[in-house]
Amino acid sequence: MTPSKTSPDLPPSRSRRRLLGRLAAGGLVASQAAAAGELLRPLQVAPSSRTPGAPVLDHPYGVPSPREADVVRRSARAWPLPGAASSMTPLADLFGTITPNGLVYERHHGGVPDIDSDQHRLAIHGLVRTPKLFTMDDLLRLPAESRIHFLECSGNTGSEWNGPSGLPVQLTHGLLSCCEWTGVRLSTLLEEVGGVSTQGKTNDGPWLLAEGADAAAMTRSLPLHRILDRALVVYAQNGERLRPENGYPLRLIVPGFEGNTNVKWLRRLKVVDAPLQTREETSKYTNLLADGSARQFVFEMDVKSVITRPSPGHRLTTHGYYPISGIAWSGRGTIRKVEVSTDGGASWRLARLDSVARDRALTRFEADWRWDGAPSAIVSRATDSTGYVQPTRAELVAARGLNSQYHYNAIQQWRVDASGEVRNA
Amino acid sequence: MTPSKTSPDLPPSRSRRRLLGRLAAGGLVASQAAAAGELLRPLQVAPSSRTPGAPVLDHPYGVPSPREADVVRRSARAWPLPGAASSMTPLADLFGTITPNGLVYERHHGGVPDIDSDQHRLAIHGLVRTPKLFTMDDLLRLPAESRIHFLECSGNTGSEWNGPSGLPVQLTHGLLSCCEWTGVRLSTLLEEVGGVSTQGKTNDGPWLLAEGADAAAMTRSLPLHRILDRALVVYAQNGERLRPENGYPLRLIVPGFEGNTNVKWLRRLKVVDAPLQTREETSKYTNLLADGSARQFVFEMDVKSVITRPSPGHRLTTHGYYPISGIAWSGRGTIRKVEVSTDGGASWRLARLDSVARDRALTRFEADWRWDGAPSAIVSRATDSTGYVQPTRAELVAARGLNSQYHYNAIQQWRVDASGEVRNA
Repeated sequence: MTPSKTSPDLPPSRSRRRLLGRLAAGGLVASQAAAAGELLRPLQVAPSSRTPGAPVLDHPYGVPSPREADVVRRSARAWPLPGAASSMTPLADLFGTITPNGLVYERHHGGVPDIDSDQHRLAIHGLVRTPKLFTMDDLLRLPAESRIHFLECSGNTGSEWNGPSGLPVQLTHGLLSCCEWTGVRLSTLLEEVGGVSTQGKTNDGPWLLAEGADAAAMTRSLPLHRILDRALVVYAQNGERLRPENGYPLRLIVPGFEGNTNVKWLRRLKVVDAPLQTREETSKYTNLLADGSARQFVFEMDVKSVITRPSPGHRLTTHGYYPISGIAWSGRGTIRKVEVSTDGGASWRLARLDSVARDRALTRFEADWRWDGAPSAIVSRATDSTGYVQPTRAELVAARGLNSQYHYNAIQQWRVDASGEVRNA
Repeated sequence: MTPSKTSPDLPPSRSRRRLLGRLAAGGLVASQAAAAGELLRPLQVAPSSRTPGAPVLDHPYGVPSPREADVVRRSARAWPLPGAASSMTPLADLFGTITPNGLVYERHHGGVPDIDSDQHRLAIHGLVRTPKLFTMDDLLRLPAESRIHFLECSGNTGSEWNGPSGLPVQLTHGLLSCCEWTGVRLSTLLEEVGGVSTQGKTNDGPWLLAEGADAAAMTRSLPLHRILDRALVVYAQNGERLRPENGYPLRLIVPGFEGNTNVKWLRRLKVVDAPLQTREETSKYTNLLADGSARQFVFEMDVKSVITRPSPGHRLTTHGYYPISGIAWSGRGTIRKVEVSTDGGASWRLARLDSVARDRALTRFEADWRWDGAPSAIVSRATDSTGYVQPTRAELVAARGLNSQYHYNAIQQWRVDASGEVRNA
């Protein structure tokens, strides 16, 4: 926008006539037509300007507007085991790339423990020179690092393995959040215990056993050398101490790895020679292929994207311009590009990457679209910095079969019918 | 950390003896000595592992741990006017660079209005070709942009003009927060109304009047050309819709400008030829100099930094290593460097910039420090991308005198006494 060279100021009456002229031409959306009617009157004093509002400190810790009360985490199903459950982030109602702490998704195997930060200890032991117990104060006295990374449950979008589930994006892709995490580098902690005293018995070198202090004693084995350059032991998310359901007072963050390896309520890190084949890496979190064999220790969440607006539950009210907005992420690096199609993938165009592409973090994309009222099929396809391109469902099923519950990252289609309704079909 | 070449695995008993040997040498902090005692026993099963924890969806919208209940916004003083007040962000308890929405500082001139997003309108009028009213739906249908920026009240740290106030960092620097903001570029909105139809009557070109829908009808004039490349009209902060106290459903964000110009509950943008000399730019928010003249329309918040940990209220419990952590920001660009001193500014060293330096956003810095128990004076000094160096209080007072309430950005000193207590003195 640059200011005009011509142009005397238009008195209100003339500018209103010009606006009505444009409305007569039918170029504007219905809500703006309504707005034009309002413009025929002088601007009213806002009702909210007539009396003082609520005092400060009504909420020393703030809460969302009651008018946004439907923007909450939801669960896709009832869970059989006591304390084993999940809740999902309302992606269709969110913007940008940061997930507010109150809406970060949950996945628990034994419920949310109540842990006293002052009593909590982190043990680092096993094949290290000088095993130690760390208090939270000890950890707060070590050099800190803050980084923005996504977290995604490996079961996220598993609902779509057999085709469109009909579910909205919160329930298909909502086991996904992105926060700024603050804590201590794993490498710093290993220096504090004198370094590791093994080269390991696998090609991956030494492994690290991480154990949570929850009722499930959530336990995973991780290949130490593959995570050492980026793993953090964190005590804060989005600036404040971790929320109870996200691991208060301490959790592991392994950027790009499947959610369950980012062990919450972290109490123990043990350096070992080889993976310990815990329940969560044998009976759970392996990927069963068509031939009955299982992929084990599949850690990285592959490149993925999804359109969040418009998405099921949204309705296009009038013909005309709509931005297509969504998120893309990769457990292997940054997002190089996102392509969008409104004809189910027959033709593609580049989306704008609205936010700075961050390593192993959500990236917001947006593409322009003028809806003419015809039934449409909107899809997005992301490519990451390794060149990996998000697959179609057919390509994914051809490679992995239909037995797997985990690591579904196929292109997601939303249908827009002539009424403007958006459906997962 | 690289894995050792030597090293058989040590049985627990030997590694414990080695750890005790190091403790005997007195190298470790007290809490680690206590931890060593615990290491003499096998690791206990965590009490929190003995019974299932709380179910998911106890809080569909999550809240902080009750154990962190003291981390809240606080007010520095009682406010005389009904609805005019502020509350401050607890910087000493926060980490990284993002401020969680529940702790974003508040400054209101007429209280917090309750506005129905569906009924809210934004009028863009004045010297534009086709004035329009926008509904929130209209705005959500325009191209969006998300950016991380700080917000600082121009009165922030005014407590220190006459020397150390004795207050903790929440009450000296807590009118400061940093969020990811999502909305529509001001330039896009001006294109929607056909562009401006004036070149203005000041050297600054056209001005923009922004008015809020609160009881104070908060109104400011802004030089359009100076803000057009970056100003946003936003509906979301940190991923979710704005909080009521932060302008729900709509506010102006002018990155780097003093907080009050980021008009909340935004209802009107009027393009004008010259500033309108509103109450907030005549009786308020001008800077009175020593000679009695006033600086008017001082918009940019100059480069500033402060140490948040350790800070008043913290206590150094033992001698040894402490990271010095703080935040730096500039309304004129990015942070080029931060220097830290532990002898009151006699000697300086470079701090690490922990987070990516973002334009007009908080940057976290950290410096290593080994406290030997001697009384110390810890200070930080930031330099921004324009080369502007944060001044001492003496330099600031020499330039601006003691009449001004606003734009105090001097170097802040915390004293550490021999007991480890940290004070603003």
